[in-house]
Amino acid sequence: MNDPRVLKVRPTADTYAWTFGGSAPIARIAPGTVLDLFTEDCFAGRVTSEKTLVSEVCTFPFLNPQTGPFYVDGAEPGDTLAVHFVSIEPARDWAASTTVPLFGALTSTHATASLQPPLPETVWIWQLDRERRTCLFTGRDSPIRAELPMDPMHGTVGVAPANLEVRSALVPDAHGGNLDTPEMRTGATCYLGVNVAGGLVSLGDGHARQGEGETCGVAVECAMNTVVVVELLKGVATPWPRLESDTHLISTGSARPLEDAFRIAQLDLVQWLVRDYGFSAMDAYQFLSQAVESPLANVCDTNYTAVAKVRKDWLPAPVAPVHGGLHDHLREFAATLR
Amino acid sequence: MNDPRVLKVRPTADTYAWTFGGSAPIARIAPGTVLDLFTEDCFAGRVTSEKTLVSEVCTFPFLNPQTGPFYVDGAEPGDTLAVHFVSIEPARDWAASTTVPLFGALTSTHATASLQPPLPETVWIWQLDRERRTCLFTGRDSPIRAELPMDPMHGTVGVAPANLEVRSALVPDAHGGNLDTPEMRTGATCYLGVNVAGGLVSLGDGHARQGEGETCGVAVECAMNTVVVVELLKGVATPWPRLESDTHLISTGSARPLEDAFRIAQLDLVQWLVRDYGFSAMDAYQFLSQAVESPLANVCDTNYTAVAKVRKDWLPAPVAPVHGGLHDHLREFAATLR
Amino acid sequence: MNDPRVLKVRPTADTYAWTFGGSAPIARIAPGTVLDLFTEDCFAGRVTSEKTLVSEVCTFPFLNPQTGPFYVDGAEPGDTLAVHFVSIEPARDWAASTTVPLFGALTSTHATASLQPPLPETVWIWQLDRERRTCLFTGRDSPIRAELPMDPMHGTVGVAPANLEVRSALVPDAHGGNLDTPEMRTGATCYLGVNVAGGLVSLGDGHARQGEGETCGVAVECAMNTVVVVELLKGVATPWPRLESDTHLISTGSARPLEDAFRIAQLDLVQWLVRDYGFSAMDAYQFLSQAVESPLANVCDTNYTAVAKVRKDWLPAPVAPVHGGLHDHLREFAATLR
Amino acid sequence: MNDPRVLKVRPTADTYAWTFGGSAPIARIAPGTVLDLFTEDCFAGRVTSEKTLVSEVCTFPFLNPQTGPFYVDGAEPGDTLAVHFVSIEPARDWAASTTVPLFGALTSTHATASLQPPLPETVWIWQLDRERRTCLFTGRDSPIRAELPMDPMHGTVGVAPANLEVRSALVPDAHGGNLDTPEMRTGATCYLGVNVAGGLVSLGDGHARQGEGETCGVAVECAMNTVVVVELLKGVATPWPRLESDTHLISTGSARPLEDAFRIAQLDLVQWLVRDYGFSAMDAYQFLSQAVESPLANVCDTNYTAVAKVRKDWLPAPVAPVHGGLHDHLREFAATLR
Repeated sequence: MNDPRVLKVRPTADTYAWTFGGSAPIARIAPGTVLDLFTEDCFAGRVTSEKTLVSEVCTFPFLNPQTGPFYVDGAEPGDTLAVHFVSIEPARDWAASTTVPLFGALTSTHATASLQPPLPETVWIWQLDRERRTCLFTGRDSPIRAELPMDPMHGTVGVAPANLEVRSALVPDAHGGNLDTPEMRTGATCYLGVNVAGGLVSLGDGHARQGEGETCGVAVECAMNTVVVVELLKGVATPWPRLESDTHLISTGSARPLEDAFRIAQLDLVQWLVRDYGFSAMDAYQFLSQAVESPLANVCDTNYTAVAKVRKDWLPAPVAPVHGGLHDHLREFAATLR
Repeated sequence: MNDPRVLKVRPTADTYAWTFGGSAPIARIAPGTVLDLFTEDCFAGRVTSEKTLVSEVCTFPFLNPQTGPFYVDGAEPGDTLAVHFVSIEPARDWAASTTVPLFGALTSTHATASLQPPLPETVWIWQLDRERRTCLFTGRDSPIRAELPMDPMHGTVGVAPANLEVRSALVPDAHGGNLDTPEMRTGATCYLGVNVAGGLVSLGDGHARQGEGETCGVAVECAMNTVVVVELLKGVATPWPRLESDTHLISTGSARPLEDAFRIAQLDLVQWLVRDYGFSAMDAYQFLSQAVESPLANVCDTNYTAVAKVRKDWLPAPVAPVHGGLHDHLREFAATLR
Repeated sequence: MNDPRVLKVRPTADTYAWTFGGSAPIARIAPGTVLDLFTEDCFAGRVTSEKTLVSEVCTFPFLNPQTGPFYVDGAEPGDTLAVHFVSIEPARDWAASTTVPLFGALTSTHATASLQPPLPETVWIWQLDRERRTCLFTGRDSPIRAELPMDPMHGTVGVAPANLEVRSALVPDAHGGNLDTPEMRTGATCYLGVNVAGGLVSLGDGHARQGEGETCGVAVECAMNTVVVVELLKGVATPWPRLESDTHLISTGSARPLEDAFRIAQLDLVQWLVRDYGFSAMDAYQFLSQAVESPLANVCDTNYTAVAKVRKDWLPAPVAPVHGGLHDHLREFAATLR
Repeated sequence: MNDPRVLKVRPTADTYAWTFGGSAPIARIAPGTVLDLFTEDCFAGRVTSEKTLVSEVCTFPFLNPQTGPFYVDGAEPGDTLAVHFVSIEPARDWAASTTVPLFGALTSTHATASLQPPLPETVWIWQLDRERRTCLFTGRDSPIRAELPMDPMHGTVGVAPANLEVRSALVPDAHGGNLDTPEMRTGATCYLGVNVAGGLVSLGDGHARQGEGETCGVAVECAMNTVVVVELLKGVATPWPRLESDTHLISTGSARPLEDAFRIAQLDLVQWLVRDYGFSAMDAYQFLSQAVESPLANVCDTNYTAVAKVRKDWLPAPVAPVHGGLHDHLREFAATLR
């Protein structure tokens, strides 16, 4: 891509960010900038075979490197940044997954503490066929090979948090961060509320694919070549991360216990219908109770993340186009970049 | 349907069951029996307009009437009953939904107790177009009409519980009951572990459609004409309710907090792959972490219910056909009933 | 005790109840009756040495035998039964505790499901010195002996539940049951709301002592000789079990997650101050936020149980004596029984 | 106090810290330094009457001002700071409490999200009698006055967190922070694991008294004159905040849901007995299950905090004095300061 509208960023080992907030911007960009980015995998590229255990090759807190942050000119608290995913392409023909001791949904953890010993630490290397768009699973102690469709996504996209805080890149919350939802795929637009001047948006944690809930805590982790467009919505507040695809409005909530993540996402989607589609709160509550899809994002991270989504073509006409039709404009613009 | 293999049951007001366990069987059936059933809606048919409030027309514990239970000859603890849904058809051209004071996900409840007053009690009547297979929403205090696809299902299917217990028909747990998952639709087979002689299976709580999570606590509630085949799997234990569709293996878990429901369902699906597909536990954990779909069922009932499902065509060949290919046989048999 | 006001009950192996609800009463008593009871320990007396493992000597659902139930003349739904503990005396000079596979707070369980193997199943026999009122701990794999004060209590006291349900004696909920709170000791009065005619009260699960939260899931389990007075409060509803001691008003809540148990107990105590002490709800909320003691009861059972208690001598004068001064009357009456 | 060993700090409005981590130290101190501190109340002193509502007079994130942080010479990750409370004295003869919209245990919140309107925002001013050591409650809409014992404590004591994070002073976690436990009173020693060079310890959030669980989310909030001694334990790790009093060993855990906070605290106390008292893990699990006290600290903050404590005089002799007898030494040293 040699488009003058495009800023190409290839980070070096010492230019990754490990937090949201607290990291100096690596570039200042105008709204509308196209970013052509490389993102390293969540292991900082250190897990390269079945023998490279996270506990041996990785060092806390140097996990989940972020490409960025980017300071967006004019972004101020109360505004919203829109990150539109033009393309997300695996940068290698393999990806790694693993169990991590005392991390994941089907094990005790540092918080769900027990006296039981941790599960074994095992690495799986997945082969990616980028032509055929597949991910090949090979069992470690069972003779199983199985191919799954490739469905690249970013586990982590976020801005600097509110309240003077700096959060590890492993945390999902109101600022985005490690949401780990498969909805963050090519063609989607992610809306993030701005908490500090410039927003300070960054992204990373590419997954060649991921199940809903990210049960073992780790996806098919892969370095990515990713193109996004970053836009700015002045005067629009977004309390919790939202996404928009060609087909769906998508709210997220991140909290523990998991029902609170569910409540946040569902209430946010109710409020979205109230704001943009003319529903009363009670009517939106009823309508969504029958129409919503509620796939889980992650049930393993510091906060759990739930998704609430509704098909746009099931909704009445909006009072006014959502965000002035921004998602559609970005889709059209993205098409010009190819 | 005048097939001799078919037992037709049209309950009267005094023959419904209100519990799982503790109700005398209304019929004794052989394995393989086809049941042609009428089920009343969860309000026992008493909510008929926007003016009939649950708090005024319904009386605890006479909610969620069950058609049954049926004593299945030869069913003993340690066996599994299979309930295959041949058809689920709304019995009326309207359905009712409502908010119920201190019940639902976006309100405090008797358990998530607060000092706030309850939300207003509001009834919505949905118009069902059984030809066009649609459900029409009409706003109560906003001028909105919107049509959703009809997708009929049963919220409640279960057997008598273990441990000498009798549970309200409003409760989902290991015995099934009020799971409230949209997966319980025509074409699916539900597997339930038998806890007492005869199993004592019953069903009810038809929904013309339901969102994932049943956010407000109430679906598009509708009386149903439903046909099921009940089969018996001797010597097969099923600790938590499972479903099988033409496309998916589906596990459920019911518990609070919601992450425990998630854990139960995910672990059960891991164990399913271990039992029938030759995965080691760790390989199944890894594979499903990347392949699983995790839509929520309900986040409002006494226990919350989570679903874990995986596409069959993503799996390797099973070690032996699941349950001897029972689901496929039932599908073929069901086709002969039409 | 040969007092004519006293009904002495020594159950045999086949007369224990294993549920609340669903068990026929073993006696009909008038309000004010003194019951002189033997209760077996939660293992039905089968764990007698370090070699008798629960998983080998006990059979589900035959755990936690209850002495009763008793049908109290005149008790109807909407009334309250008061159970005053005159004395709770260990019936043996030893008691047993144990870990149970996949049960307890510091292990994964059937609900908080994991892929980890369970903790070892280990039995500890505690020596009780009934003269010196001590319980002697002897380590199993560390050379430790330590004496703790004896503080006898009943883990389980309850009535038949509402909504046609029958619950295992292992369950704590609104009907009481397996609350496992050390507050249930000699000198306390327990108030239980009546759900069915006669109330059907029973008790069991004596503990020579128990820590708050019953961390490993099992206390110092001991058969007991226990004397209680059962009284009836007509027209007084008690939604959740309450206790009264000479010094405290005590509310309980049982639910999952644990914060819901906390919320129920705290709200109940707010409502107690509103009903009997003339507080507004908001004033009671504020006052209790500064005055309440919140020790945990159990964090291991089917529901977790939290306690909210407040010192009576910190309260203003009640609007009218609580329950007409019943607790004080029962204390005086109990003194005449010795 | 004019002792040369004492550093007196009286912050000005612009020298408070609002976070743990991310704030420059206000002084560098040697281990063993006595700090004579003024701490402002959690409202930064702005709530002064029943008419000064938090929502009107306070501005996020400028809540819960911390006095500090202090850089302790020689403190490095892996060490432990000990903060011994010599005295905590209310600096005024009144204190304020309040409800805060969508904050507290008996209301929906931003995380436990609902569609219900928030509770009213009400301020209570408590009169403190520093001679008689009492706090006088006056009802806002009920004619109630009631006196509670004064029991001054600090809600917030902590160090800079691990993993490059900066956390709001309102957050309790492994770094300490807003634990809100009444155990943090005069005579106690608090142990905090060091995460960054110098530790960066600060404290604030004085309470004239507080109930267990801090139900409404706000205690009897009061500026304090507080004297602490800060010591350094080289080479001793403390994963979660611990306290030691003359009578008890005390562990804390902070997490959601509340059972995870419970699990963390109980496991930490098990590990304390293993490290210092020669228990095996299983023996400590059994012993503490019968001996532990489990009062709640807060069930309202970003994380909930549970306490697990055990009487020292119930324990066998330690293998070696805990922390070389540091708590006893600090008690003796504190006596010389009066």
